[in-house]
Amino acid sequence: MKFWKKQKHKQVFEGASHTGKDSIRIIPLGGAGNVTKNMYVYEYRYDGMLRDIMIVDCGIGFPEPEMYGVDLVIPDVRYLANKRDKIRGLVFTHGHDDHIGGIPYIYDRLGNIPMWGTKLTAAFANIKLREIKSRGTVTPVEFSETIKVGPFLVSFARVTHSVPDAANLIIQTPIGVFYHGSDFKFDFTPLDGKLSDLGKITEAGRHSVLCMLTDCLGSERPGFTPSEQIVGVTLEKELSQCSGKFLFTTQSSNISRIQLAIEIALKHGRKIAFFGRSIDKNTEEAVKLGYMRFPREAIILDRDVRRLPPTKQFLIVAGSQGQPESALSRIANDGHKFVRIEEGDTVVFSADPIPGNEHNVGNLIEQLYRKGARVSYSDIMEDLHVSGHGSQGDQMLMLSAVGPKFVMPMGGTYRHMMQYRRLAMELGYEKQDILIPEEGEVLEFTGQGRPRIAETVALENVMIDGLGIGDVGNVVLRDRQTIATEGIVVVVVPVEQSTGRVTAEPEIISRGFIYMKESGGLLKEGKRIVSQSLRLKKGRIIDWQFMRKQVEENLGRFLLTETGRSPLIVPVIVEV
Amino acid sequence: MKFWKKQKHKQVFEGASHTGKDSIRIIPLGGAGNVTKNMYVYEYRYDGMLRDIMIVDCGIGFPEPEMYGVDLVIPDVRYLANKRDKIRGLVFTHGHDDHIGGIPYIYDRLGNIPMWGTKLTAAFANIKLREIKSRGTVTPVEFSETIKVGPFLVSFARVTHSVPDAANLIIQTPIGVFYHGSDFKFDFTPLDGKLSDLGKITEAGRHSVLCMLTDCLGSERPGFTPSEQIVGVTLEKELSQCSGKFLFTTQSSNISRIQLAIEIALKHGRKIAFFGRSIDKNTEEAVKLGYMRFPREAIILDRDVRRLPPTKQFLIVAGSQGQPESALSRIANDGHKFVRIEEGDTVVFSADPIPGNEHNVGNLIEQLYRKGARVSYSDIMEDLHVSGHGSQGDQMLMLSAVGPKFVMPMGGTYRHMMQYRRLAMELGYEKQDILIPEEGEVLEFTGQGRPRIAETVALENVMIDGLGIGDVGNVVLRDRQTIATEGIVVVVVPVEQSTGRVTAEPEIISRGFIYMKESGGLLKEGKRIVSQSLRLKKGRIIDWQFMRKQVEENLGRFLLTETGRSPLIVPVIVEV
Repeated sequence: MKFWKKQKHKQVFEGASHTGKDSIRIIPLGGAGNVTKNMYVYEYRYDGMLRDIMIVDCGIGFPEPEMYGVDLVIPDVRYLANKRDKIRGLVFTHGHDDHIGGIPYIYDRLGNIPMWGTKLTAAFANIKLREIKSRGTVTPVEFSETIKVGPFLVSFARVTHSVPDAANLIIQTPIGVFYHGSDFKFDFTPLDGKLSDLGKITEAGRHSVLCMLTDCLGSERPGFTPSEQIVGVTLEKELSQCSGKFLFTTQSSNISRIQLAIEIALKHGRKIAFFGRSIDKNTEEAVKLGYMRFPREAIILDRDVRRLPPTKQFLIVAGSQGQPESALSRIANDGHKFVRIEEGDTVVFSADPIPGNEHNVGNLIEQLYRKGARVSYSDIMEDLHVSGHGSQGDQMLMLSAVGPKFVMPMGGTYRHMMQYRRLAMELGYEKQDILIPEEGEVLEFTGQGRPRIAETVALENVMIDGLGIGDVGNVVLRDRQTIATEGIVVVVVPVEQSTGRVTAEPEIISRGFIYMKESGGLLKEGKRIVSQSLRLKKGRIIDWQFMRKQVEENLGRFLLTETGRSPLIVPVIVEV
Repeated sequence: MKFWKKQKHKQVFEGASHTGKDSIRIIPLGGAGNVTKNMYVYEYRYDGMLRDIMIVDCGIGFPEPEMYGVDLVIPDVRYLANKRDKIRGLVFTHGHDDHIGGIPYIYDRLGNIPMWGTKLTAAFANIKLREIKSRGTVTPVEFSETIKVGPFLVSFARVTHSVPDAANLIIQTPIGVFYHGSDFKFDFTPLDGKLSDLGKITEAGRHSVLCMLTDCLGSERPGFTPSEQIVGVTLEKELSQCSGKFLFTTQSSNISRIQLAIEIALKHGRKIAFFGRSIDKNTEEAVKLGYMRFPREAIILDRDVRRLPPTKQFLIVAGSQGQPESALSRIANDGHKFVRIEEGDTVVFSADPIPGNEHNVGNLIEQLYRKGARVSYSDIMEDLHVSGHGSQGDQMLMLSAVGPKFVMPMGGTYRHMMQYRRLAMELGYEKQDILIPEEGEVLEFTGQGRPRIAETVALENVMIDGLGIGDVGNVVLRDRQTIATEGIVVVVVPVEQSTGRVTAEPEIISRGFIYMKESGGLLKEGKRIVSQSLRLKKGRIIDWQFMRKQVEENLGRFLLTETGRSPLIVPVIVEV
């Protein structure tokens, strides 16, 4: 195969002495035991010394329900802090947020490093970087190119996924070949006609891959994941039954599916309008790069849809995850300037809720029904959405094609990894050759024998809330959790600065605990208990730490007995 | 049919003049547009005056995710407050918590009313009443009985569901027959061999039912819901592959399925132990009443399981919804006294997560995998659980059998009701004869023409948090929501009592907002802004309401600009 010959791997390292101490370490800063927040570090160590780092992906994650108020989670890159001079570059596998979305937050902390991605991937990442006016730019590469990232030679194998231009990476290193098989499925009839490059993948396999990292999210589903094509069939059926406006919502990165929807709309004589910033931007970029094609006059401006009869409208609307600020949520709640739901309208959800969003999506569907729309979603209508991730069949095909010595499932939770292991064992792999590192565990490959756990990196969730990156830490979060479920009680104790005497009755204020106006008795008794706790030392507070503990304990015990709740108690001393 | 003849309906009302102004009103205090919290009020009005009330069911609901800290939700019975002397009794349809669980909280507010339910239903409800030492008792009735609840004659039609002894109610009233068709499916091979009483149901149909209220939860699923039997087939397969302990978890009310599990365990030579208070209590009661049968020696005490080899253990464990305090959660987290997960153990989830619990269940599965267990749940293994609710096929059969004039879907959300409407229209019903009242809307039937909306009852969520019933209201909840996502900032302003002068610098304390120790600058500037806001009136606070607003606004604006967050700001004046 051509791509392989082009690489002059040996020459790159002709100066290397190869004492046998060379190694590659893989450090997942995110994405291990985790579906999102993907970020993998490949380290080349020469004679035991760290020499070069390549990063693959830099995605965002979604907060767990108990991370109250947190908007996003990003990978913890503290590990890289004192290694910036070793980073040779970053390669993106595809243009989904959980692979590119972290870069605007993290780019500045990595140094001015070069970045690469296939054409659409680079374009989507650059939209994000431009939004924050970053200096960083992702360089687009062709699938035929092989790039050199320090000692790593990286080739791009096209794979089908729910965004065009997705790639798996074939990474040649001084100690062997790694296959970075992030999100993929084998769609044999993809919408853009571009198949997974099975030739290149098997060619990599023939050069004996040392380790394959591979998308394991679909390991619980038997068979092959269906093709994107079937979405079109279902969509056409829905459209032909619609006697009003037609609203279509899907992920804004799924350019091919949006193109498909547009083609079907045109066939049925409807005009198309886009609603939502991300859909606007992504389609604009995709058209510019030639990934979407439609007659200009097919599209009308959002404010002009009202001039058309409902049966001529096809609205592509952002908000398939029920995001409260999205165009679809605003439409459902009569809060949109140009669109209002009427009896006879149809809303089609061509996306499944991401775990954690079920409730928001459910509420949105409920609201649309109430406004009189006919709503279709995967619970009642199969094939409105198909996964971009391969199922067991796809995974077995990939594993057979690459045939690595070791395989490491990624991009799934522990249960997906364990299911993948079961699958790989059915294909003849030894249990020990299926690598399931715990979070933060660093695997070191020397090319000889099994990889070992070289070290364990402590990783935290870096949480983004509003404008703050990482300033919501575990202390803040724990307080939020307590207050959210139990409420807060603030006890203000005025103390004379000079003498340390308590000068007046303590004041008790609560929020989120109990409706205070109707709880006068509880309040009064609470004050008495605080006063008692303070009076232990005859009106003078000597050891404030001790007093604080007393107040917390005594008041806490009292409130628990009376109400069954344990609010956060915050004693405050005010010097007067 | 016998049950019908026995009723002497006409005689009961021989004194009634029947001016044509008689009516029946149906008031759903819970369960309309809602899956849980079922409570229906049937009112008989004679000559326009309210004369008698019968209640059907009194269930709990589960809090929405945004109801932070709330344990349970119960129906709002304020509507009944001044009508207690008219309540003739309460009838339970079946023994699930969303139909009986509210009674311990509500019984005292209804007056000392009589209550009925079929044998197991009454037993389960009485367990709950005994737990709080209530005076109330539910009287068990046979399926062959017809009871008189004021002017209402109530017959019980057996239906299959996921708890034995479930009934639909045939309610004869002075103006016509109502069919209260709560949760059911048509299981033609039920585990206890007791089929839905299709004869009685069709007999009711022959007496021309005025309105059928009917379980619509499964209206999105085509076909018939499968029989409970298939759970056994899957379970047997799982057990035969297990080389360690076998843990089985399901709803504790699903007595028949627990019986099935026990039989399979015995067949494979394993001994059974129960873990969890609700499973203990329910099985004890079920055995006593003859609903479960197994040799006494098959059961061992929880503390004795360690004496058996793993392959002889079959543990029936509570906690299928991932409840943090349940036996299964404690086992998964190595916090159980007698059971520890080991490599080779199998855990089978024979229950689907209730919407809202997906995250907790997912975490529990994850944790069990990490401990080395093989975990089976419906995502990877079909037929480990089947729904207790009928699908479209079951619903069509019921609608055809009863053939009511009007039909009102219940026990589902709006989308389920709309799906049901579609279904009923396919069976020839006019759109207007399928009643979809909004929450709180009261339908009045006179026997002539379509029912009208007689009034609208304002209903609130009555929330239970700890020991408090209803003391967490909307104010408390709104504060919790704000604090949970944005944090709280308390501003303490010491003021001299006599003069109204601010005596010292204001103090700012925050929780859940930002890590204050690392935000000295923000804090200092915040204090300056508060001081400035207060100094407007030259150190004397005249209008505290106005000052409070100033502080809230100015500090709020500043913090939003700096952090992108809007914490709850609580100014507190402390008089010294």
